[in-house]
Amino acid sequence: MGTKQLVSVIKIGGDIVDNPNLLQSFYENIKQISGPKIIIHGGGNKASTLQKALGIEPKKIEGRRITDAPTLEVVTMVYAGLLNKTLVAGLQALGVQAIGLSGADGDAVRAHKREVVEIDYGFVGDIDTVQVSVFQELLVSGMTPVCCAITHDGKGQLLNTNADTLASRIAMAMSSVYNTQLFYCFTKAGVLENVNHPESLVQRLDEEQYLRMKQDHKIVDGMIPKLDTAFEALDNGVFSVHLGDVAILGDSTLKHTTLCL
Amino acid sequence: MGTKQLVSVIKIGGDIVDNPNLLQSFYENIKQISGPKIIIHGGGNKASTLQKALGIEPKKIEGRRITDAPTLEVVTMVYAGLLNKTLVAGLQALGVQAIGLSGADGDAVRAHKREVVEIDYGFVGDIDTVQVSVFQELLVSGMTPVCCAITHDGKGQLLNTNADTLASRIAMAMSSVYNTQLFYCFTKAGVLENVNHPESLVQRLDEEQYLRMKQDHKIVDGMIPKLDTAFEALDNGVFSVHLGDVAILGDSTLKHTTLCL
Repeated sequence: MGTKQLVSVIKIGGDIVDNPNLLQSFYENIKQISGPKIIIHGGGNKASTLQKALGIEPKKIEGRRITDAPTLEVVTMVYAGLLNKTLVAGLQALGVQAIGLSGADGDAVRAHKREVVEIDYGFVGDIDTVQVSVFQELLVSGMTPVCCAITHDGKGQLLNTNADTLASRIAMAMSSVYNTQLFYCFTKAGVLENVNHPESLVQRLDEEQYLRMKQDHKIVDGMIPKLDTAFEALDNGVFSVHLGDVAILGDSTLKHTTLCL
Repeated sequence: MGTKQLVSVIKIGGDIVDNPNLLQSFYENIKQISGPKIIIHGGGNKASTLQKALGIEPKKIEGRRITDAPTLEVVTMVYAGLLNKTLVAGLQALGVQAIGLSGADGDAVRAHKREVVEIDYGFVGDIDTVQVSVFQELLVSGMTPVCCAITHDGKGQLLNTNADTLASRIAMAMSSVYNTQLFYCFTKAGVLENVNHPESLVQRLDEEQYLRMKQDHKIVDGMIPKLDTAFEALDNGVFSVHLGDVAILGDSTLKHTTLCL
């Protein structure tokens, strides 16, 4: 770590992007974080709403979403278009010099179409490379990259990518050059022992306890891949990983979950 | 002009973006242009198609399109999302280090909501400022900005802007630093004396002849605002303005229309 500069990589969930009050709270808190930062945003419900309005039946195999060609068009429109530009314009209004990116822009994040083993996920991208130099150049010019989770394969194909994984991979890549802290912001105060009791917040979570909580079904559903990518970041050079609501961006003393090795 | 470096500002019409063959031809020709370049793209029919599919009635007053809130969402999704990222990924596949921009990204192009005089055009932006430094930094890093015609007002509001005007204003701004050539590429060979006869191409067009052709109704409809913005660029520092099909990007000796003072 030593003399490396600090960079904050901040993932905000679709549930924040979807909610005007939470989005406002995000804007108020993001201003408080000094130094270079990279924002990664999730998709929210807008893509599903648009799909339904267009009569595109959401495809699922064994509960997992499939990105067929019409779905890829919809998520590209919503994530890279509407949500990304709304966030960029909102940040610009605060004086944050935001610049929106998909993985195709500047070849920032390259992926490959997930190989078909048992399930064909369609146009879903598994990340191969994050070009640190592209992010670094933008940060050095005083810009704040705002990344949606659309990547490309370098051969002209756009790909739908998991936003939690994207945040983790960008943070891991940046840690070769920067002292990188990674935030996952969502609508809860952090990881909870009992999902119905906010006061059961786990303030420090190590992998052993995580595995135990998974076994006890205290951590379920979307929190599992999120925590998997979060621990992967911590295991690969990212110096701190924090999970909580957007208020932790503005006040790091607020209670939230910090991962530990 | 002197020792200024050359930059090419290239507007490609929506009719090219919509047509896979013409888009392929654009990709083949754009590779031939050496030196820094900025691409501006139009919208094509995709936004209208999406509007219809969503049951949004296109609003017009006296034949002019009105951008109400649902329409702004649609054009932001289509122009800044689907079309912009498709172009960026397509250019990346050629080895062009493309980066997609709306006017909000990096605060590159700021506009204000058009004032209501007789008609309320809705969320339509008239351009105030083009930040040359943002484009310059990207060009110096070897990137090719790919701009859609969505701008912002600096207060969080996205605005729908005319792509021909955007190209002209970017070219004018760049000419303070670069020797700027401006291309308008569409599906005709250039300005025609008789729109039904491709051999009636006007190879050199000055303002006097333009006014005469307008009076004689030889230049009509969308060509009028296009040529107005094109002459505005020539009158304001842009050193050459060319109109024609995408082949002129690859071979400048091909017949097309060049504007002259």
